[in-house]
Amino acid sequence: MTSSFVSPATTSNPATAPQDSRERVSQAFKQLQDSICRQLETLDGAGTFQEDQWERPEGGGGRSRVIKQGDIFEQGGVNFSEVWGQNLPPSILVQRPEAAGHGFYATGTSMVLHPRNPYVPTVHLNYRYFEAGPVWWFGGGIDLTPYYPFEEDVVHFHRTLKETCDRYHEAYYPTFKRWCDEYFYLKHRQETRGVGGIFFDYQDGRGELYRGPDTNGPAAQHSQQIGELPQRDWESLFSFAQACGNAFVPAYSPIIEKRRSTEYSDHERQFQLYRRGRYVEFNLVYDRGTIFGLQTNGRTESILMSLPPMVRWEYGYTPEPGTPEARLYDIFLKPQDWANWPTP
Amino acid sequence: MTSSFVSPATTSNPATAPQDSRERVSQAFKQLQDSICRQLETLDGAGTFQEDQWERPEGGGGRSRVIKQGDIFEQGGVNFSEVWGQNLPPSILVQRPEAAGHGFYATGTSMVLHPRNPYVPTVHLNYRYFEAGPVWWFGGGIDLTPYYPFEEDVVHFHRTLKETCDRYHEAYYPTFKRWCDEYFYLKHRQETRGVGGIFFDYQDGRGELYRGPDTNGPAAQHSQQIGELPQRDWESLFSFAQACGNAFVPAYSPIIEKRRSTEYSDHERQFQLYRRGRYVEFNLVYDRGTIFGLQTNGRTESILMSLPPMVRWEYGYTPEPGTPEARLYDIFLKPQDWANWPTP
Repeated sequence: MTSSFVSPATTSNPATAPQDSRERVSQAFKQLQDSICRQLETLDGAGTFQEDQWERPEGGGGRSRVIKQGDIFEQGGVNFSEVWGQNLPPSILVQRPEAAGHGFYATGTSMVLHPRNPYVPTVHLNYRYFEAGPVWWFGGGIDLTPYYPFEEDVVHFHRTLKETCDRYHEAYYPTFKRWCDEYFYLKHRQETRGVGGIFFDYQDGRGELYRGPDTNGPAAQHSQQIGELPQRDWESLFSFAQACGNAFVPAYSPIIEKRRSTEYSDHERQFQLYRRGRYVEFNLVYDRGTIFGLQTNGRTESILMSLPPMVRWEYGYTPEPGTPEARLYDIFLKPQDWANWPTP
Repeated sequence: MTSSFVSPATTSNPATAPQDSRERVSQAFKQLQDSICRQLETLDGAGTFQEDQWERPEGGGGRSRVIKQGDIFEQGGVNFSEVWGQNLPPSILVQRPEAAGHGFYATGTSMVLHPRNPYVPTVHLNYRYFEAGPVWWFGGGIDLTPYYPFEEDVVHFHRTLKETCDRYHEAYYPTFKRWCDEYFYLKHRQETRGVGGIFFDYQDGRGELYRGPDTNGPAAQHSQQIGELPQRDWESLFSFAQACGNAFVPAYSPIIEKRRSTEYSDHERQFQLYRRGRYVEFNLVYDRGTIFGLQTNGRTESILMSLPPMVRWEYGYTPEPGTPEARLYDIFLKPQDWANWPTP
């Protein structure tokens, strides 16, 4: 947004990345893709992933895996990619000026799952790693988008993420949770995309945790209250990114098991299709990765795998007061302290 | 895209707008909305438009009209708006630096129709007028998005627009047709949105006709070959904008009449829903009006009335060779000289 929103870091250089950093991270992200796909196939019981391997002419490639018409998943995609090139895009250089003039390397795993049953939430995950000249950083997150409001599901999701974060640093969850609420926000609807989760970017072990654009927002304020953390090394952040990836199945699968057999009617299905429209609006209007990919010759089919298989728009829809749909809007589409939410 | 793509104009000031320019243009655009809605209701035979009047806190307002579940139109919207304020957005000031520091006035009529029958094309129309300090200009256009390929429909559409343009200046159609192909282009798909029509912007009667970003593209080249037109006055451009608006029904309604009763199966319906995804991608990723509106507190429901009621995405779809779907991709989703297309 502006050219100077990155907090100044007192440590001028990040810790050194190991010689084999790229191989180790890409290997870990491939394993994450493998492990997630295997577990999702087991959960689904019917659908299997189809893989497309692809190469990027400018350097690198990936493997896109799609599941369609499964028992649980109407459509889902789990991508791995590893790309390199001469120059990072200006949008990233603004936040990492030290990377200017250097070649870059980026690898990541990303996933979106669109279940058929409206009682099962959509989920998104993305973890990524960059290197460019003297700098490297980890980024990513995971967030949940329910169609129907069940406090216990959301509390379970957030507490699982919090437990994982707390194993690394107690400041991670409260900062990255707020950052997630900030990032997955549809300004034109004044709604969060869903109930959030965690999100972080530009983590190289230096300085303040929050490095996003809203320097007056809750995430920035929380980060400032904490102050600068002691420098964390590459191994610690690599381990954290892997732990976050591994937290996905324990965070999400109990929700699937609880909701997958709930009966629903066309009413719930229509509401799900309508709400999926918000997912499309977010990804195409706001999501930096999607927009950047589309505008810079990325593999379109892999980028847009995140879009739902069937979507509906309806002019002027508002939920009836007192319905579950209204509860979703009133409570679940606003930032809430889910990890501390009172549960029965 | 860049800050200097507007062709230099030898005439330093545009012709003066009449004292009552705002009233006359807004009146004409309201009448266009009325006339289009009336004729569409007659054509449809079952659906009627529902109107929402709205006010903009910063100044102005509009009337949004929606037709749903008609005999022909699954959903359609015809908007009129008239807004004013302190400052034009930077994206417009770049192209109209003379407007900086002045209040602005903008009025326009826009429309998108999504028919249910896959053999009836989607159509979009938008005409608008701006004033800001010493400058005023007209902009807009109309374009057609078929799902199934019928040359005669497209030829009729383009010839009707060409006849209207030719009554004003023979350079209009060839320039504005190329500009339309350029504007309604999905770079990430390497497809035109449909078969185009006409599009123009920043028309104040001065200089070269083309004032878009692609200074080496076919529209710019054609405009440069023609050179600068003699200065045209406000009345002439106002009349032209009205004539373009009035050309919509004769350009589109014969296509409806010809295709509305064609039988179709789920196969054609599914292809239509899939192709509607491109409409969403264009409007949310590229359309300046949509993005500007969403990011600046416009009336979201009116802006997103252009989105289709039901949409589908499918990973990795490609049409079977030799099918009508493949013909659409091979011929209709590339710029063609439709006004001179050989017809049987």
